[in-house]
Amino acid sequence: MKKIDSCIAWHEHKIKRRDREKLKNQRGCVLWLTGLSGCGKSTIANMLEETLNKKGSHTYLLDGDNIRHGLSRGLGFSDEDRMENIKRVAEAAKLFVDAGIIVIASFISPLRKHRQAAKEIIGADDFVEIFIDSPFCECVKRDVKGWYKKALNGEIENYTGVDSPYEKPENPDVHLNMEETAAEEAVKMIITVLNNLWIFL
Amino acid sequence: MKKIDSCIAWHEHKIKRRDREKLKNQRGCVLWLTGLSGCGKSTIANMLEETLNKKGSHTYLLDGDNIRHGLSRGLGFSDEDRMENIKRVAEAAKLFVDAGIIVIASFISPLRKHRQAAKEIIGADDFVEIFIDSPFCECVKRDVKGWYKKALNGEIENYTGVDSPYEKPENPDVHLNMEETAAEEAVKMIITVLNNLWIFL
Repeated sequence: MKKIDSCIAWHEHKIKRRDREKLKNQRGCVLWLTGLSGCGKSTIANMLEETLNKKGSHTYLLDGDNIRHGLSRGLGFSDEDRMENIKRVAEAAKLFVDAGIIVIASFISPLRKHRQAAKEIIGADDFVEIFIDSPFCECVKRDVKGWYKKALNGEIENYTGVDSPYEKPENPDVHLNMEETAAEEAVKMIITVLNNLWIFL
Repeated sequence: MKKIDSCIAWHEHKIKRRDREKLKNQRGCVLWLTGLSGCGKSTIANMLEETLNKKGSHTYLLDGDNIRHGLSRGLGFSDEDRMENIKRVAEAAKLFVDAGIIVIASFISPLRKHRQAAKEIIGADDFVEIFIDSPFCECVKRDVKGWYKKALNGEIENYTGVDSPYEKPENPDVHLNMEETAAEEAVKMIITVLNNLWIFL
């Protein structure tokens, strides 16, 4: 017997992405922040959203921990679960782009295949990869959440940078070397890139 | 060994829902349209979004078929999968509400427990249940997609209203009797309810 699955048709809606973007004077896009835990993703994500909000841009911030309380509740940190988490985030981010929102997505997303999957789901034209590049030892020294200590002591497992790999982006759209760049400066650099991409209409 | 799962903390962001809503002069909320396939959900959802967009409201339309191409890809129509689908939709809708968007969610959501789950995830204050009430025989007569015919012929299974139940909402926020109400009138009634809920700031 035929399953309903094969009968699902894509619905065209009357109000389209451009109509929603016009109201906001901006183009929807995803600013994908990748980097080790403790590299400064959250600091930059928050400062960036504050700056954009003040200039009247419509934003939304998705971050790893908050998503794991909702859309990805129940997923763990195995290879398979990390990939499923990234896929759900990317599908949600894609809907936000269709709604005309500038999405700031702050996710360790440690492997190239994770970022590649997100880019494919969201669409290359709407995906801006931003590498928040802090040296491992700096992240460990900071250890905001106290997890590096636990991971290095063997108290938790699958921790990126300790017993789980982080693959640096090879060709990110923005590469922020955090040893040389203050957070304010980093935000300015991102805004410049957004200007060049004609995100603000 | 301790899993990372237990270490996930909720992140407070600098820019909050109210900041995002202020830019849009509206309160985020979910207008949850429930009803049989062919009852007129899509027609009303589209007309409603068009009306809201024209008056400058920031909206997004989530519908069952489109979500099943993305966030819920791979889920079927078993009891368990239908519930998982509704939960993912509700989690995504909740993020949109936090972004300050008026979400129009058009889902058959046939069982009370589906709508209840959505309401619990989204939060009762942000959830408006709208029952698009068309008699079964009218939906079958219309049969826009030709699926009722197939379902009644036994060519597809688990079809709501045919071999899968639809439980009418007992106390919806808006009850639209489609035998007596033209689509334009239905949209006006919904807008009136939104005015009474102080959705437009």
